[in-house]
This record gives sequence, structure tokens and C-alpha cells, in this order.
Amino acid sequence: MRNLMFSIIAAGALTALPAAAQTAAGPDLSAGARHLAERALADPTAWKVVESLTTEVGPRPVGSPAMVRARDWGVATLKALGFENVHVESFETPTWARGPESAEVVSPYPQMLRILGLGHSAPTPPGGLTAPIALFRSYQDMLAQPPGALAGKIAVVTQAMRKTQDGSGYGAINAQRTAGPAEAARRGAIGYLTRSLSTAEDREPHAGGAAAAGIPAAALSPADAEQLERMAATGKPIVVRLDMASSENPATPAWNVVGEIRGREQPDEVLVLGGHLDSWDPGTGAIDDGAGVAIATAAARLVSEQGRPRRTIRVVMWGSEEQGGSGRAYGAAHRLEASKIIVAGESDLGADPIWSLSVPRGSARTPAMQAFLSVLPGLKVIASPQPPRFGGSDIAGLIAQGVPFVDFNQDATRYFDVHHSAHDTLDMVDPPSLAQNVAVWAAFLYTVANSDIDFRKLAQQEARK
Amino acid sequence: MRNLMFSIIAAGALTALPAAAQTAAGPDLSAGARHLAERALADPTAWKVVESLTTEVGPRPVGSPAMVRARDWGVATLKALGFENVHVESFETPTWARGPESAEVVSPYPQMLRILGLGHSAPTPPGGLTAPIALFRSYQDMLAQPPGALAGKIAVVTQAMRKTQDGSGYGAINAQRTAGPAEAARRGAIGYLTRSLSTAEDREPHAGGAAAAGIPAAALSPADAEQLERMAATGKPIVVRLDMASSENPATPAWNVVGEIRGREQPDEVLVLGGHLDSWDPGTGAIDDGAGVAIATAAARLVSEQGRPRRTIRVVMWGSEEQGGSGRAYGAAHRLEASKIIVAGESDLGADPIWSLSVPRGSARTPAMQAFLSVLPGLKVIASPQPPRFGGSDIAGLIAQGVPFVDFNQDATRYFDVHHSAHDTLDMVDPPSLAQNVAVWAAFLYTVANSDIDFRKLAQQEARK
Repeated sequence: MRNLMFSIIAAGALTALPAAAQTAAGPDLSAGARHLAERALADPTAWKVVESLTTEVGPRPVGSPAMVRARDWGVATLKALGFENVHVESFETPTWARGPESAEVVSPYPQMLRILGLGHSAPTPPGGLTAPIALFRSYQDMLAQPPGALAGKIAVVTQAMRKTQDGSGYGAINAQRTAGPAEAARRGAIGYLTRSLSTAEDREPHAGGAAAAGIPAAALSPADAEQLERMAATGKPIVVRLDMASSENPATPAWNVVGEIRGREQPDEVLVLGGHLDSWDPGTGAIDDGAGVAIATAAARLVSEQGRPRRTIRVVMWGSEEQGGSGRAYGAAHRLEASKIIVAGESDLGADPIWSLSVPRGSARTPAMQAFLSVLPGLKVIASPQPPRFGGSDIAGLIAQGVPFVDFNQDATRYFDVHHSAHDTLDMVDPPSLAQNVAVWAAFLYTVANSDIDFRKLAQQEARK
Repeated sequence: MRNLMFSIIAAGALTALPAAAQTAAGPDLSAGARHLAERALADPTAWKVVESLTTEVGPRPVGSPAMVRARDWGVATLKALGFENVHVESFETPTWARGPESAEVVSPYPQMLRILGLGHSAPTPPGGLTAPIALFRSYQDMLAQPPGALAGKIAVVTQAMRKTQDGSGYGAINAQRTAGPAEAARRGAIGYLTRSLSTAEDREPHAGGAAAAGIPAAALSPADAEQLERMAATGKPIVVRLDMASSENPATPAWNVVGEIRGREQPDEVLVLGGHLDSWDPGTGAIDDGAGVAIATAAARLVSEQGRPRRTIRVVMWGSEEQGGSGRAYGAAHRLEASKIIVAGESDLGADPIWSLSVPRGSARTPAMQAFLSVLPGLKVIASPQPPRFGGSDIAGLIAQGVPFVDFNQDATRYFDVHHSAHDTLDMVDPPSLAQNVAVWAAFLYTVANSDIDFRKLAQQEARK
């Protein structure tokens, strides 16, 4: 074959959408949803999309030349798969870019440390920054320090992240990365190191964003954090040298890439689903979030194979999730349209199976949602009685405007082993698990796009009960 | 505590060896061996030794300042643990040292590759080397190329290593690393990249030695090798840039560090056991071979706790296994003594449990070996009917002079996941597994050192049968 894109085109090009299918009533919706879910489990499209993106573009931080290639890849991929109204929505966002970085213990036991600078880390002075460390085994211990207590020191926090199926271990600890540099600086620290927010016990540091704090800040690999704990246990003073370069751009061009399956009856009623196209730089962004882009794209395409749906399905490849900006930009750009957006969702927790999900409040007993929920047992998914709570960073701008949304919860047990690290490459994606995600989303899109379900009205009715 | 060494001293200092125990006959040897094996399973010494070495010295390639610290650490550790005749045996060996290295795909899909230069890799010209690649999915495919076929190209071999319990997957493929650069150069290649000899599916390259070939040569991470395979599948020409610095030193000072438990009856009859003190540079050399150093040291120390043995037990921390030289130097230095070396062994396959072992030919039915073998079922070890075949790189110089040796085979299933990579850190060592190794070696040293078993004579008798 000529290239990986060509294989996608060969597999699934829709040069013209098939004629409208019969309007599905309740029972037909169930049969259609089940049929689609079955087809999804055997459909290679999502795998080919994530393979193509991670291989042909690779790592794609916002502001990099690779992100321009990612944008063009997104447009070409959506067109090749038969999407309509394929276009790019531009915005600007502040970004941070990594330069050469190194860290080492100078004394008492000289050796290199494996780090990755955090977003908005300040560079060190040319030639580096050498200082004694103050090591804290919990983030709370550092926060308990009074102002000035860390003057002249590099603060080091070695608290480890817990592994959980629902990913809650990340939320519980991520202030250690996002706010840690600023909290350390507030107490006088001249540098900050955090144990990576990783659930693996290995030597890989994990990148990530942090609030600007005016000091160099980096993530240590778990093994390096434990190495510093052992050195600290000897009671000897530990001196570390950081040498980090980076740059900031307050107005980096960025793009949300969009494609649609236009609705045949209510084209102005829109389902918005996507993943984010940008990634951190160390890996190739396979599970974060090439997988989400692939799941959304493949699910929408599968629905279109069954004939043009009643409503419009829109796939968005958001362009700046990691450093922020694409969700806000998307919400702002679609303010006037928000009331016509039926539901929004984002797939952004990797490629492992969906194990539970929440549909919007008050909707579970409707024929459309009953049709959708009927596919879940076969896909080993539990319908949660809880209403959705998060949705996704890139639909936060829509949610703030009252757009209904869903949470499809992927098994996060392995996700944070590789998230934001060099290990986030295609081999971390399990094709059957990826296909299970496509099956769930395709069934959902199909039932909502081919019904007249009104999540806003149902939520209001539920609230009145 | 003041430092990690202090904790070792507190745990097990033997300022004076206890008085000689009663000479053990067959049945007593069995009881003593079982007692020792039980004690070993609860003894923290090996863990403390490997923790101290990997934390306080860290990575220690031959020729580095860290190797000097490792030598001093070895002397201090053996003295602290009560060994006698602690000394250093100097030699010189040629070494290669890594400089800054990078690799990237220039076209068609620009992105960085994760590599580690191989020992004796040539540096690239200043500014790097950019060339098209010729990719082979098997080493045999590359060897099948005629002279000149790779002219002007960077040869890339992506064949993967098999995971096996006995480590045979390594032997089966390691010519791809050790001879690959020279074979590629012979066919005109101007650079060489091999998939790392790794059994992990991740982003970590694994270092290792290779014969000098006059061209830059490096190991790719498994994920990067697969990335190049995917690019190659598109049929587009792939251009790679290597930028690698390194240096060679034909006569690097190196040291074998030695300590003894002197025998009370036959002090000139010596059991030689050890591991190697040097390591590759990316990790801290925990499983390769801090664990072996720790196992040998802890096992000998445990035997000494039971009273001075009849024969001398000598622990050697060999000083240049990874780049070669310490085994040859040791054999040469002990030529005159070789006939008095009763048996030799090396622990150099990590820290996972011993699952089978081979004692010297013809010895299994002797009272001493029966006493030793009686502890194996409780430690989940199988006595192999095969005679020993390898021994270890560092005792090859003794074996060549007819010194009897043993093979204690550790479970290698996980070993090559981290071997020679940055992941070779202390967290890869499982303390109970480490202690099982100590138990097996301690029981063996005890029975041989407290008997008059003569492996040479037994092998001759067996040969005459």
C-alpha cells in the first residue's frame, strides 16, 4: 500500500452517503443499535485512524510544526471517510514549549535524574540552577510549610498517585502537579520537582500542565522520586542541579477540525462528539488522545453507513486540550448554536473499554435511551444511575451554556501508567477494547440522531418531580 | 539513620568470626544447610546491599567516576560485613563511553526516535549523519544482502526478542546487537539501528556491547522499531538522522573487589562466588548486577555466621563485565591458584528466583551435594540432570583453566524487560525473590565449604564410567 491513509480510504470511503433509511421507531432503534454495535466490534476504522495519526504525525504539541500536520491530517481523514462540511475553526491560545532539560544529584551521590519539565515551567538561568532540596513525602507536608520556609531550596514532593478503575486517583492528586510549583514558589522555593502523576513503578517521567509560577518545575520518574527518598533517609543534605530551557508563546495559532454527517430531517439539531488532536510531546499521543479521535470518527462513520440520520452528527477533533484553550474556543464560537446542540460528549480517557456510563438526567426511560441501553449488557457496560458529572475538557464551554452531555467511563486502571509519557504509543492500544468504545458510541449516536429525544426537556421534567 | 551503609553494619557486622563449629558430617550438613536456607529467607542483608549500591553509587559504567566510587563502596561494604583479606585487584580494559545522542525521522513523518548507542559505536560526524534507511524485519534478511547492497544507507533490523524463562531468547538473538553493526558495515551501511534486545513492549531502548564496526550503531526502543515498520509499510522512502557522540579508551583502569571468609582447615581451598559491580549507564544496575553482588555477599556472610567453614569462601565483585575484561583479568591473575579453586559461580541474571540448577558432573550423589540438594524442594528449585554449561562471563577465565563451576538458573521471564535499560532500578528487585537466591547459594557454599568434596575427581570418575 502507498500509505496508511490510503488503507483507511480503501476500507471505508463514503463518497456519497446512502439514501435515508426508514425512520426508526422504538423497537427498530433497538435492532439498529444492536446491529451497529456488532458491526463496530469488527470494524477496523478506529484502529486505522489511530495508527495513521500516531505514525504519520507522531507527537503533536500545540504550537509545533507537527500540529499543523495534524490539522491537515484531520481534514484529509474526515474527507476520506465521507464526512461533510469538513472545515477548520481557528483560535489562539497561550502555549509553553519544552527545550533541552536535565537534572542530576550533585551530592552526596552524584547521578542523573529522569525528568520532564511541566507546562509553564520557567527556564533555569543559563548554565543551570544548583540548590539543596527540601523533600516532602506528601503534598500536604509541603503546604504546611510557612512562607519563606523553602527559601533558596528546590522543593521535592514524592507522594505517589493511587491506581483506580475510575481514574479518581488523578483528580485526588493533580494539584501536586498543577498548583505545586506556585505553592512552592509562594514558600520561597526556587525550583520544584514532583513525583510524576503515574501509576507505573518505572523510570518514566510524565509531563503535564501547571500554573505558571516563575520557577523551574519538573516531574520526576517514580523510580527517581523513590531514589531521592532513599537518599533523604540517610539524613545527608542533597544538592540537585536543574538545567532546563523552554519558551512561551502567548498567542499560538490552533485549530479545531470538524466534519459532519448532515441530518436528513433536522440538520440544525446537532450531536457533538470528539476527542482531542493535540498531545504532549514525549509519546505519540495514542491513548491521549489519538484513541478518542479515532473512536469518535469511527462511531460517526458507522452510523452514516446505516443511512443519513434524522439529526446531524458532528465530529470535532479539538486542537488544544493539553495546554487548554480548545474547549473555551469551541464554546465561544458556538454560542449562538448551543441551544440546538442536542448532546455533547468527549472520548478522552484512553482506549480501554467503557465499563459504566451516565446518560443525561431523566432520559433513561425514554424509548430512545432504552434502545441504546439495551446494547450495554452485550458490551459489558453498566448504566450508572448517577447523572453525568464531567463530560470532558473540550465540551466544558458547551456544558457551561447548558448543553446536555454524557459520561462514558473507560476503565482507567492502565491509563495513568503511560498518560503524558513517552510510553503513550500505539502498542498501548488494544484493538478489541478500542472497538468496544466505538460500539458504545455508535449505538448512542444512532439512537439519539434517529429519534427526537430532547434531553433538556427531560431534565426539566425530572427536576419538577 | 545516618546512611544506608550504616544500616548494613548495624544489621550484620561481624567484627570477629565466631569460633569454629564442629566439623559437619553428612546428616549434620543437611541440617545446617536447611537452617541456613531458612535464615536466608528472613535475612535483610542482600536487600540492604543492593539498596546501598544502587542508591549511593547509582549507574557505574567502567571508566566513569562512579566506578571509582563503586570500588570504594565494595571495599567498605565487605569490611563492614566482616569479610577478611578485603582488597582490590587492578587491571586495564578497553572501554567505550556514551556522549550526547539523538535520532529522528527526517521524512516522510518527522519525529524523534528513542535510542541508546551500542558499545563501540562510532560517533557520527559533527552535525550528525542523515541517510535513507533499509529496514529488515529479520536479522537473516539483512545477512542475506550482498556486499555493497546497503551502501550509503542506515541498516535497520526490527526482529523482536522472544521472552523465555531460561533466557535463551537472548542468546538466540544477540548477534543482532553484537555483530549487527559489523555485518551492516560489511555490506556498505553507514549506520546501524537494531530493535533493542528487550522483551518489553515499551518505549525504552536497551544498551549493550557490540563489536567495533566503524559506523554509528544504536538500539531503538521496541515501540520505535515498530513505528519504523509501519512507516516502511507505506512504501515511502524513510530518511533518518543520527547525531551521536562517544569516546573510546583502550586502557581504562578497572578493579575486581575481593573479600574472604577464610577457611579454618583448608584455607588454600577456595570457593569463588560473585556478581559484577559495573553496570550500563542508563539504569542504576539493580538487577544487572547489583542483585548478584548482593546475593553473593549475603550468602557468604550467612555461612560465616555458622562458624568459620573448613575451606575459604571468596566473594568477588567483578569490575568490568558489561564491556568485558574482568573475567579474563581474574582468570589470568589466579592462574597459579586455579587448581586450588574448588568451584566457581556467578550470579548475573537478576533478582528473580532460581528455578533450576546444575551441580558439577558426577557430584549429585555425594553426601555433600545430597545435603545441598535436600534444601531445594522447599525453595521451589529443580535439580537439573544436565551438567553446568555456562557459569558466567566473569568466571570464564577460571573455567578455561578447568575450574569446576555451577549454573544456578534464575527465572529470566522478566529480566530482559529491563536489562540494560533505564528501568533497571531498585524497584525491579523483589525482596523475597532476592532472599530465595541467597538461600540457595548459602546452602551450596555451606555444604561445599564444610565438606571435602572434590568436583574435579568426581567428574573424572564419571567420565570413566
